[in-house]
Amino acid sequence: MLKVAVVGASGYTGVELLRILYAHPEVAVTCVTSEQNAGKPVSSVFPTLRGRIDLPLENLEPIGISEKVDVVFTALPHKAAMEVVPTFLKMGKDVVDLSADYRLRDADIYGQWYEKHMNPELLSKAVYGIPELRRDVIREASLIANPGCYPTSTILGLAPLLKNKLIDPKSIIVDAKSGVSGAGRGAKVDNLYCEVNEGFKPYGVGGVHRHIPEIEQELSILNGAPLAISFTPHLVPMDRGILATIYSTPLKSATAAELVELYQAFYDGEPFVRVLPEGSFPSTAFVRGSNFCDIGVTVDQRTGRIIVVSAIDNLVKGASGQAVQNMNLMCGLPETLGLDFLPIFP
Amino acid sequence: MLKVAVVGASGYTGVELLRILYAHPEVAVTCVTSEQNAGKPVSSVFPTLRGRIDLPLENLEPIGISEKVDVVFTALPHKAAMEVVPTFLKMGKDVVDLSADYRLRDADIYGQWYEKHMNPELLSKAVYGIPELRRDVIREASLIANPGCYPTSTILGLAPLLKNKLIDPKSIIVDAKSGVSGAGRGAKVDNLYCEVNEGFKPYGVGGVHRHIPEIEQELSILNGAPLAISFTPHLVPMDRGILATIYSTPLKSATAAELVELYQAFYDGEPFVRVLPEGSFPSTAFVRGSNFCDIGVTVDQRTGRIIVVSAIDNLVKGASGQAVQNMNLMCGLPETLGLDFLPIFP
Amino acid sequence: MLKVAVVGASGYTGVELLRILYAHPEVAVTCVTSEQNAGKPVSSVFPTLRGRIDLPLENLEPIGISEKVDVVFTALPHKAAMEVVPTFLKMGKDVVDLSADYRLRDADIYGQWYEKHMNPELLSKAVYGIPELRRDVIREASLIANPGCYPTSTILGLAPLLKNKLIDPKSIIVDAKSGVSGAGRGAKVDNLYCEVNEGFKPYGVGGVHRHIPEIEQELSILNGAPLAISFTPHLVPMDRGILATIYSTPLKSATAAELVELYQAFYDGEPFVRVLPEGSFPSTAFVRGSNFCDIGVTVDQRTGRIIVVSAIDNLVKGASGQAVQNMNLMCGLPETLGLDFLPIFP
Amino acid sequence: MLKVAVVGASGYTGVELLRILYAHPEVAVTCVTSEQNAGKPVSSVFPTLRGRIDLPLENLEPIGISEKVDVVFTALPHKAAMEVVPTFLKMGKDVVDLSADYRLRDADIYGQWYEKHMNPELLSKAVYGIPELRRDVIREASLIANPGCYPTSTILGLAPLLKNKLIDPKSIIVDAKSGVSGAGRGAKVDNLYCEVNEGFKPYGVGGVHRHIPEIEQELSILNGAPLAISFTPHLVPMDRGILATIYSTPLKSATAAELVELYQAFYDGEPFVRVLPEGSFPSTAFVRGSNFCDIGVTVDQRTGRIIVVSAIDNLVKGASGQAVQNMNLMCGLPETLGLDFLPIFP
Repeated sequence: MLKVAVVGASGYTGVELLRILYAHPEVAVTCVTSEQNAGKPVSSVFPTLRGRIDLPLENLEPIGISEKVDVVFTALPHKAAMEVVPTFLKMGKDVVDLSADYRLRDADIYGQWYEKHMNPELLSKAVYGIPELRRDVIREASLIANPGCYPTSTILGLAPLLKNKLIDPKSIIVDAKSGVSGAGRGAKVDNLYCEVNEGFKPYGVGGVHRHIPEIEQELSILNGAPLAISFTPHLVPMDRGILATIYSTPLKSATAAELVELYQAFYDGEPFVRVLPEGSFPSTAFVRGSNFCDIGVTVDQRTGRIIVVSAIDNLVKGASGQAVQNMNLMCGLPETLGLDFLPIFP
Repeated sequence: MLKVAVVGASGYTGVELLRILYAHPEVAVTCVTSEQNAGKPVSSVFPTLRGRIDLPLENLEPIGISEKVDVVFTALPHKAAMEVVPTFLKMGKDVVDLSADYRLRDADIYGQWYEKHMNPELLSKAVYGIPELRRDVIREASLIANPGCYPTSTILGLAPLLKNKLIDPKSIIVDAKSGVSGAGRGAKVDNLYCEVNEGFKPYGVGGVHRHIPEIEQELSILNGAPLAISFTPHLVPMDRGILATIYSTPLKSATAAELVELYQAFYDGEPFVRVLPEGSFPSTAFVRGSNFCDIGVTVDQRTGRIIVVSAIDNLVKGASGQAVQNMNLMCGLPETLGLDFLPIFP
Repeated sequence: MLKVAVVGASGYTGVELLRILYAHPEVAVTCVTSEQNAGKPVSSVFPTLRGRIDLPLENLEPIGISEKVDVVFTALPHKAAMEVVPTFLKMGKDVVDLSADYRLRDADIYGQWYEKHMNPELLSKAVYGIPELRRDVIREASLIANPGCYPTSTILGLAPLLKNKLIDPKSIIVDAKSGVSGAGRGAKVDNLYCEVNEGFKPYGVGGVHRHIPEIEQELSILNGAPLAISFTPHLVPMDRGILATIYSTPLKSATAAELVELYQAFYDGEPFVRVLPEGSFPSTAFVRGSNFCDIGVTVDQRTGRIIVVSAIDNLVKGASGQAVQNMNLMCGLPETLGLDFLPIFP
Repeated sequence: MLKVAVVGASGYTGVELLRILYAHPEVAVTCVTSEQNAGKPVSSVFPTLRGRIDLPLENLEPIGISEKVDVVFTALPHKAAMEVVPTFLKMGKDVVDLSADYRLRDADIYGQWYEKHMNPELLSKAVYGIPELRRDVIREASLIANPGCYPTSTILGLAPLLKNKLIDPKSIIVDAKSGVSGAGRGAKVDNLYCEVNEGFKPYGVGGVHRHIPEIEQELSILNGAPLAISFTPHLVPMDRGILATIYSTPLKSATAAELVELYQAFYDGEPFVRVLPEGSFPSTAFVRGSNFCDIGVTVDQRTGRIIVVSAIDNLVKGASGQAVQNMNLMCGLPETLGLDFLPIFP
């Protein structure tokens, strides 16, 4: 039985970790932290947990926490993570970090998009945790940089094409749409019910969203050479879900059937990637609450472009579910343990 | 390992049964039926299931089905259920019926609210399956009449008061609110997104909703004498959830604290009923996707009335989750097996 | 052409006033205020207004404002209103106050529910502005206390019964449901999209909501004697709309048809109250964006209780629309001027 | 006073026409039709209209209708429109057709995407009614082909770029998102609340949506040569609104500021197009219920692509509002008459 801490348990990825870990047969959550709610039971912050997880929220004291757990999930804002992760590592703990702090290999790029990195020496040790692409390295890692929600859907959507050099890497356009939980639980007017409900809008237009360097880093690895993409995120009036519609120009023509076959072969045996049959496309509704990434692919008859559509639950495969998948690998457990639950519909 | 059939698998309670049963460690779903989609994989009707439950939907042939399963869930409209349940019983199967067909003990009352009953002799054998009130009888039953969603929330909300004769039974008013999945998956203009979204309305006003006789039957048993209630259902623009706000006049005054204590004692040890502390009240958001029934109780300072608020997920504790709870009892399994998952939030 | 100020223009009732007044043929909005956004164009706070109302938001200086307008709408929180209303009145302006500050005739009651009143001498001059019940007095007033959203729906729903002494005044239970805009535009976690969406819950349970004294004051006037009610508000995941389901015990029995006739006679000729035919009940969806109050009434066959259902748009008939209706009366304009627009559906 | 018929008044564009026309000072709606509801008052189909528009729905008899009106709006499905429009024209009526039947100049293309055209000789007489691009011709027309919702947002979004030959016409990708009212009021499982709510999905992926030929026809005219686009529509869980995110490659580089200036000049004086300042982008929430088209434009710093975002209310500028705008022009009325209302927010 692994003893686990959820550091930063008062946000949406935190409570989702607790939901998943509660049902995990090899995990006992023994520590939850929240600076602003310290002392209260976590179930007073999230009444869904009442009667099942009533642990008191603790202050974030890395040494004390390390003494009582085996694995640490850091579900903190960026910067807050890199302030504590080194201590957890020094104490010999396995860490799955859900922030952006260890996702970029290059500290300068981190500096451009976020701020000066506090422990750049860890960047080369951290493993960007997409199990479908990097399973073996994850098994050996002690620090997982858990991917962002947009990057997960985009990278899984494009990997078969880039890996097989089927598309012009300069042609990639990712039009992405996210549910509101991706914006976190901070009290901001912009995220009030009446501001978001019954509206649809883009944000970060023009290539400025912080998930871009992370996406480009991973796509460049797949591509074998640097590339740049157009990426535009949008906000959908719903709680959960990310759907990315991805456009690219093929280097040589392929039919929809051939592309579907390629994707099915690429993801053959993957427990959480479902490649849809030709003519079917994903909906976030069909992955909600699950660790699935559903992918559909076709060719635009009029222009020859390849269109890939990928959908995940941003809080599961895009955050907490993938984090547990990474933990399973890192800790030598079966990869799907505690994660093989079905989407909730409706 | 129990082999289980879900008869009527193309509705919302059907797919919710499949979601729950998939994660149940002692169940294998081996048969799913749907007249209108026979031949197709159930995952083509509900893409959430894709890759995990791809069983073909079968026609509803009770004898053939009985030969390959141990337990049958009938998630059919009323009337359709009583056409097949007798056969399943004759074949020696345990049946959990989610329709209204076996909920009323009195065939005449069934006739008034529905239509002439086809096998009234079964009504005395059927057990109205609220485990919190009737656990031992359920264990011995072979036919469970799984309660309706409104009745579950109302009966659990009122049981401690009526059982302890604390309220005037003539004073009960139940103002109930349901998410849209309660209306089923039929193609009706009234249930279109644009008709329901951004609106709130009552329906069945004036004491005409078909769940009333069922509620009154069970409350009358608790009360030890017949009673009649005012019951008004409303439609909430959300997928899941029922919340009942229940008003009654106490026979002698009690404080909120005393009432909370009474409820906590009454439901002490119950795995799925959570009585909230004084001053806290339920939200459907905090039970969504789970088998919990959350209950809060207080006294209206200005009028002395007792106000009880109970909330469930109509598809789980109000239908498929309770059905599995009943199956567990009926089949000698631990009552919470496969049901101890947390609500999904947000 | 009336020159009008909207004081407190950065909240939802403020922007709704601007939407309505923009289309009003006898009004020019010449001043808008907001302390926290002073200096910015109001259209930067509400982009809906862009290109049509780009007035700069001003600081709240009552004397300066008075010099340039004829009528002042104060759409401020309670307390903030009573700090400035006396000055506007001294400057000879007509004031429609949308806060709670002048709604209660009794300063002590105001003190119990809010805080010590700063200018209690104005309470007897203020007119509680429900035009359907107090049209003539409103015409003569210079200070209108614009009713709250819950009170409007409740009072209009009960007036015919109480005025005609048809019900037991001790029997009244009001189960009310509101869209989220009623909670205002403050940045609070409780009102975030993901906290509210897909959930339904009560709040202020037990007779503690601040609209209660206002409702009881007006119902007591109609009743000719003091009364107390049970009032429970709930939050509906939608932007706009209030629906009140009102239960009471008749003093002598009446049929649904007789009650509908009574209501139709009572509201005969009223431009904004629509009494529905027997068997029809309101939905907030059918009044959204309009100044209508829709009312349905029936008798619960099983218990004899009368059930009234009334629905309004909380931002229109429950706030800004009614405020303009009051302004029209106070300023000698046709009562429906600028208000005779249809609900928006879907 | 123009006498107007709304033919096909039981759909969402029909009721939206009635909402707008009710407030139009020079219009009296004297006839409404619906085959399936003939005989009932239109307000029984849409209770929003109750007490204001209670006209009985008539059968669709073009000659009889022509005798009592001056202008006809046909809000019918395709094919149903071309069965009756010729008669209205023969009777000398002005017609605004909201269907697709007269939007394509080429009967063969219509045949490929819809079916064989019944009166192709009318195609050259019909004017594709985008006032911003074709105001003078609309004034002289007697048959307006009112544009589709997706085409309106796309064409207005791209006109300044194509007209000024600033982009590679082969590079255009339109990623479009629509609220659910665009799917109409037919009783289909796919459009049920629980199927649509809390999900986001594409449809018609691969260049197969019927609005494509219409968009390409108009863009080709602007371009001065034929072009083909990639167009992918998506369904957003909200009632109203279309937002198009449009990607293209510039022929020579331009800054965001230059592009904004270009757009502002192009649409200078247009009453219903609002070009947003640099760095601002539209939301459907800020045009809801209004005839505005909001447009933002910028350059993707990483790839040099131009990104245009345009938003409309699909039922107003995308259908019924634009239809009234066209009627105003055709009938010699001020273009904005009855249309200068503000968006409703929240």
